[in-house]
Amino acid sequence: MNEFELIAKLTRALPTNGSVVTGAGDDCAVLDLGVPDKLFLFKTDAVVEGFHFTRATPPGKIGRKALARCLSDIAAMAGTPTAALVTIALPPNFDPEFVAKIYDGMNALAREHGVAIVGGETTTNPERVLISISLLGTVARGQQILRSGAKPGDAIFVTGELGGSLAQKHLDFEPRLTEARWLAEHFFIHAMLDLSDGLGGDLRHILQAGGVGAELLKTAVPVSRAARLRARGSSAAKPAFAAALTDGEDFELLFTVAGRDAVKLLDAWQQKFPKLKLTCIGKIVAGDGILIRDKSGSHKLNIHGYAHFA
Amino acid sequence: MNEFELIAKLTRALPTNGSVVTGAGDDCAVLDLGVPDKLFLFKTDAVVEGFHFTRATPPGKIGRKALARCLSDIAAMAGTPTAALVTIALPPNFDPEFVAKIYDGMNALAREHGVAIVGGETTTNPERVLISISLLGTVARGQQILRSGAKPGDAIFVTGELGGSLAQKHLDFEPRLTEARWLAEHFFIHAMLDLSDGLGGDLRHILQAGGVGAELLKTAVPVSRAARLRARGSSAAKPAFAAALTDGEDFELLFTVAGRDAVKLLDAWQQKFPKLKLTCIGKIVAGDGILIRDKSGSHKLNIHGYAHFA
Repeated sequence: MNEFELIAKLTRALPTNGSVVTGAGDDCAVLDLGVPDKLFLFKTDAVVEGFHFTRATPPGKIGRKALARCLSDIAAMAGTPTAALVTIALPPNFDPEFVAKIYDGMNALAREHGVAIVGGETTTNPERVLISISLLGTVARGQQILRSGAKPGDAIFVTGELGGSLAQKHLDFEPRLTEARWLAEHFFIHAMLDLSDGLGGDLRHILQAGGVGAELLKTAVPVSRAARLRARGSSAAKPAFAAALTDGEDFELLFTVAGRDAVKLLDAWQQKFPKLKLTCIGKIVAGDGILIRDKSGSHKLNIHGYAHFA
Repeated sequence: MNEFELIAKLTRALPTNGSVVTGAGDDCAVLDLGVPDKLFLFKTDAVVEGFHFTRATPPGKIGRKALARCLSDIAAMAGTPTAALVTIALPPNFDPEFVAKIYDGMNALAREHGVAIVGGETTTNPERVLISISLLGTVARGQQILRSGAKPGDAIFVTGELGGSLAQKHLDFEPRLTEARWLAEHFFIHAMLDLSDGLGGDLRHILQAGGVGAELLKTAVPVSRAARLRARGSSAAKPAFAAALTDGEDFELLFTVAGRDAVKLLDAWQQKFPKLKLTCIGKIVAGDGILIRDKSGSHKLNIHGYAHFA
């Protein structure tokens, strides 16, 4: 049993009850707790020293990132965050000022988004700092946007620019809460998620959930300046387009709408959010997998990423 | 700034919003999410290898314990658990069967209590296994029982027997959910919590929250067979009464009711739960701190525990 088989097996066997609208496998769980006009979103996410931040990361940014990742998952469902619990596991004899600064960064972002922090704990993890946050949110009943629902002919959109997040953005990104709610209120979004593992991997989640494929236009994919600078800086670095497909931690929204809504949506977006780029990067097609179209034709993107584009 | 000052400082500064009925500092947070007859309970708890279990602990019991601790906190508010999220942080190249067995133990307990497990994640913690669970529950509006509310003249009750949990019970304890709801439905319980740090420490939480003191009758405190066996087995072991005060991880209910309700409650309890001991161990008094009364008189229990009783 490998890790993917394990997750599939575990997910099938999970206990459920009448409150569960959508269980494990989407950006958040969706719960019906008996409120006529609302459903509830429930999400947990952890960051670990050495993987998501380092000992050199300013503690305020660690706290901010830990909460922002959860907020981004609420955004991916077009929800509104309500209340969070925070667990900080750290070596014994930690510096209280370090913990206080983690909270400062987290609290500031929570206040921006009206989120209450209602408890949690500090516990011991001798070798490294680990922060686990759980977040409860709401969404107007029927307006939650799942990963499933993409249809052939849909236009595929992405916010912002992709790749090179590790240089800085992974500590400073803005969860796209306002934008996602606006999308859900004004358009029929078929499928949406937030990009955490890279466009190549995350788009596959939408494709598998919808039983469809995608064709991306290589020149349309918005590659970040950070990814381009890094590619230019060293011949050993990933090509910039590969970085945009695989770097991860972009925390931008990836979504699909019916092709006929695409132009209207782009126009309305540019009016509403003139400072945040929105790009149509391709379309949903029948079949499966990801095709990349460039001037030499269409190439299947293999599961291991960007070999074709090196 | 020491650890207690840190927690006090952090708790004062936490962001809040209109949904918060009771924030950090009680067994669970209490949220008003707009359901007329219900409030919501929100809790997170983590267990860490080397502290709450060892590499030799059967994985099914690790999973069971991780969830049971959260369930016990919902019980402490007289609530009903609804849905859980599970984060398992483990070394790379972990054995998938190990994780599957953790889930087996957790799932079985979840099913017993009608709890849905709606998501979570596995992440990396290279040196040791850490499991963090968050739990959402409900309580009839107005029926939540806080730690505050104890009044002079109250009788102090405890379920089960105390001390020696590390021998076995910490892996097998039953969260007192049914009992706590029955108490809340049939009696006016002034204050309640679940015993996690030991009677001596946890009773102080009730006393400080209520601005009161307590007098315990030494011979009344129900000392577990495990604590008595261990005390007899070695002259280096804690005396059994000291173990009952300080061992921790009992996960029994500690609560207070008006003195005039005490006999009626005990009678009704014995009818309803004949297999689970309920003991009146003393009374709430004006003042502060804990007095222990034995045949030689009353002794103040100092903050460091059981020195008087060694």
